[in-house]
Amino acid sequence: MVDEHIRSSQTPDILPSYWYNILPDLPEPIPPMRLGTGEIVKPEMLEKLFTHTVVKQEFSMERYISIPSDLRKTYLEIGRPTPLLRAKRLEEYLNTPARIYYKYEGVTPTGSHKVNTALAQAYYASREGIDRLTTETGAGQWGSALSLAGSMFGLKITVYMVRISYLQKPYRKTVMELYGAEIYPSPSDKTEIGRKILLENPDHPGSLGIAISEAIWDAIHSENTKYSLGSVLNHVLLHQTVIGLEAKKQLEEIGVYPDIVIGCVGGGSNFAGISYPFIRDKLKESSNIRFIAVEPEAAPSMTKGEYRYDFGDSAGLTPLIKMYTLGYKYIPPPIHAGGLRYHGLAPSLSILVKHGIVEPRAYTQKQIFEAGKLFARTEGIIPAPESAHAVKAVIDEAIKAREENKEKIILFNLSGHGLLDLKGYRDFLDGKI
Amino acid sequence: MVDEHIRSSQTPDILPSYWYNILPDLPEPIPPMRLGTGEIVKPEMLEKLFTHTVVKQEFSMERYISIPSDLRKTYLEIGRPTPLLRAKRLEEYLNTPARIYYKYEGVTPTGSHKVNTALAQAYYASREGIDRLTTETGAGQWGSALSLAGSMFGLKITVYMVRISYLQKPYRKTVMELYGAEIYPSPSDKTEIGRKILLENPDHPGSLGIAISEAIWDAIHSENTKYSLGSVLNHVLLHQTVIGLEAKKQLEEIGVYPDIVIGCVGGGSNFAGISYPFIRDKLKESSNIRFIAVEPEAAPSMTKGEYRYDFGDSAGLTPLIKMYTLGYKYIPPPIHAGGLRYHGLAPSLSILVKHGIVEPRAYTQKQIFEAGKLFARTEGIIPAPESAHAVKAVIDEAIKAREENKEKIILFNLSGHGLLDLKGYRDFLDGKI
Repeated sequence: MVDEHIRSSQTPDILPSYWYNILPDLPEPIPPMRLGTGEIVKPEMLEKLFTHTVVKQEFSMERYISIPSDLRKTYLEIGRPTPLLRAKRLEEYLNTPARIYYKYEGVTPTGSHKVNTALAQAYYASREGIDRLTTETGAGQWGSALSLAGSMFGLKITVYMVRISYLQKPYRKTVMELYGAEIYPSPSDKTEIGRKILLENPDHPGSLGIAISEAIWDAIHSENTKYSLGSVLNHVLLHQTVIGLEAKKQLEEIGVYPDIVIGCVGGGSNFAGISYPFIRDKLKESSNIRFIAVEPEAAPSMTKGEYRYDFGDSAGLTPLIKMYTLGYKYIPPPIHAGGLRYHGLAPSLSILVKHGIVEPRAYTQKQIFEAGKLFARTEGIIPAPESAHAVKAVIDEAIKAREENKEKIILFNLSGHGLLDLKGYRDFLDGKI
Repeated sequence: MVDEHIRSSQTPDILPSYWYNILPDLPEPIPPMRLGTGEIVKPEMLEKLFTHTVVKQEFSMERYISIPSDLRKTYLEIGRPTPLLRAKRLEEYLNTPARIYYKYEGVTPTGSHKVNTALAQAYYASREGIDRLTTETGAGQWGSALSLAGSMFGLKITVYMVRISYLQKPYRKTVMELYGAEIYPSPSDKTEIGRKILLENPDHPGSLGIAISEAIWDAIHSENTKYSLGSVLNHVLLHQTVIGLEAKKQLEEIGVYPDIVIGCVGGGSNFAGISYPFIRDKLKESSNIRFIAVEPEAAPSMTKGEYRYDFGDSAGLTPLIKMYTLGYKYIPPPIHAGGLRYHGLAPSLSILVKHGIVEPRAYTQKQIFEAGKLFARTEGIIPAPESAHAVKAVIDEAIKAREENKEKIILFNLSGHGLLDLKGYRDFLDGKI
C-alpha cells in the first residue's frame, strides 16, 4: 500500500474503453463556427479538411465515445496506461502538507501526451482510406507524435515545422524522419501562402499560425489528403481525456480525490486531457475542486486575450472560432516552450475560463525553467518546458498550502519530458534566460 | 489476455525484493583479482575505492541478495517495474513465426537501465556517510544515471566525461548539471593522469579507460570520497538483475518462457541484467535456451579479445582482472554507441563466454542503425545506439526462425531510448555512416 502511493499500478484495465466528451456538460453551448460571411459552418464543410469520423466527434453531444479496440491496443503498445506518481521528494523539499500527484505522459516513444490524439486521428484516417495527413508543428512534439502514428497505421505524413524550431531543433526533425515523415520548414515554398510570405521576408522565423495555414492549404489542394490538428478542437481534447480518466481510476485505487488540478495551456488539449473528467464532476455536483490552467506570459491568450470570434491560423483559412485570442496575426516571441506559442484557445476551455470554472495564470520563461530544474533535482524527471509551466503552478500552490497549513491534494499533468528540449535548459543554466 | 500479450502489467509486486547473484552458480569460480605483483586482492583493499557494502557484494557467494526497502521504493519512483512489451509490429514486418518480447528500460528519467545500479551504489554510499562519488562516463548514460542517483540520496557527484563525448554531446552534460553534478572533460587538468596526457596531446579525444583512471585517482586522493563503476564488476551486474527478474515474472504471467535471450555488451551489465536470471535456469537444469551477447565491431572484446589478466583502466590503477580484453591501452574508434567502447568484459560474463554458454556476436555501426531505424518505424521507440546492437541480433534471429519455420520466443533488453543520441541517427540518415 505504501508502494502504491508512490506509483499506482499500470494494468491494461486502467486504460478506459471510452473518451469523455465535455460538450453536453458545458455551462453554455459552444458558439458555432462561422465563415467570414457569418454563415454557420456545417459538418460537411469541415470534412473537406478533416476525416469524417473526427468531424462527427467534433459535433457530437454524446458524453462517452468508444475507443475502437484496435486503437486501444495501440494505446497499450505505446505505453498507456501511463504512470501516476506521487511527488514525495518535491513535497518534502517544499515542506508542504500538500500531496502532489502527477500523471507522467513522457513514457510514450515521442515523450509527450500528443500521441493520444495522433494515434486516434491516424487510425480513423487509415480506416477511411486516406493516403496522407498534413500538419504543422512548433517545438516538434506534435509533429513527432503524428509521424509515429502515421508509421503505425501506414499513412504518409507531411509536417510543416515552424522555421525557427526547424533550425533550432534539428533532432526533432531526425525523429520525424526516422518515422518516415516528410518535413518542410514553414514558411515553405510548397504552398502559395508560404511562397507569398517568403517573397516579403526570406528569413521569416515562422509561427504556428502560418504553419497551420500551409498544412491546410496542402491538404485542400491534394488528392486523398486530410489535415490533422494537434490541439484546440473538440475532437482533439476528447482524445486526450484518456489521461484524466486513467488518473481518476488510479487515484480511486488509492482512495484519493484531488482538490486542485493543474495543466499547462497552448491550445488547451493537455490541460483538457487531465482536467475534463474532473470538471465533469464539478459541473455535475458542484464541489470545491479548483482547476488552474497555466500559459506563458509570451502568449497570454487566457490572461490578456479577448473572448471573440477569430481565425485559428495566420492566413485566415480556418473557420472563425469563438475563443480567447490575442488576434490571429499575433506572433508570440520565440520562447523554448514552442508548444505553447499559440494565439488562441480551445472553444470549450474558453467557456470554462469565461465562467470562472478554470482559473488562468501566466508565468515567465525564467520562472518555469527554475521550476523545471527543481523538479529534476527532486523527482528526477526533467520536464518539457511546456510541462514546466504546470510544475511552477504546482510549486506555488504547494507553498500556499504550507502557508495556510492545509492538506491539499494536487494533481497535475506532466505532459512530457524535456530530453529533446535541453537547449532551453542549457541557456537557462548559462544565465541566458 | 490479448492486451497482456502486448504489454504485461506493471504492478509494484513485479519488482523483486532481491537481486540474483550468479557467482555461486558459475561453471567455474571467477579467478581472483590480482595486483601487479601477483598478490591476490583482498576485500579490504578494494574498500579504498568502493563503499563497504558493494565490496561485500562483489565477493558474496549468496545466491539472492535483498534489495533494501528504501531503495526498492526509489526503484518504484523512477519507473520500475519497467514494461515488458511484445514487438508484434516488428514480427509482422519480418513475417516471422518468432514471438519477440522486450524489456524497455528507457522509461526511467535518464532513459536507460544504468539507474538500477546507480541508485543502489548511491544508496549504500549515503548510508555509509560518504560525501561524494566520482565516476567516468562515455556517451553519458552512466554519468546521467549516477548524477540522478546522487540528487536522490544527497551525494555530490563528479563525472569525468570522455572529451569527445563532452564536446559532441553537450546535452548529456546539461542533464547531469540539472541534477547538480560537476562534470570535467577527460583527460582533464584535475588529476595527475589527465595532466600528463594533456601535456603530450592537448587535443586528446579521451577514452573510457582514461576517464576511469581519472575518477579513481580523484577518489583515492580525496576525503570521504568513493569511486563508482557503471559496469564490469560483480556488484554492478548483480544490481542489474532486477531487469531479468522482472521480465521472468512478467513472462510467467502470460505463460511464456524464452528460447533466446539477447542483449548488447560494453562491460556486460545490461546483458547480465536481462540474462543472468535465465542463465541460472540453464545452469541448474540444462535446457536449450540460448544467450546472444552483441558487441560493436569497433570494440570486439568477446569476438576478438583474449581471455587473460588485464587492467580495467588505461593507466593501470585498477587491480588485474581476468577477462576477455583487447588490451588496456586499446582505444576504440569513436562510434556513436559510446557505452560499448570498452576494452574489457565482466569476469563472470567472460567465464560464460569461455564455456560457450553465451554466444558472442559483433555488428557494424551501419548494421545497427539500420536495425534501430526499422525498430522505430515498426515499434515506435527509437533505440539507443547501444541497444540497437541487440535489436540487430533479434532481427537476424527472427529471420532465421522464419527460414527454419520455428516458433522461437525471443526476449531482449531494450536498455535505453535514443532521444539523446540523435546525432548518430542524423549522420546515418545523411549517409555519413
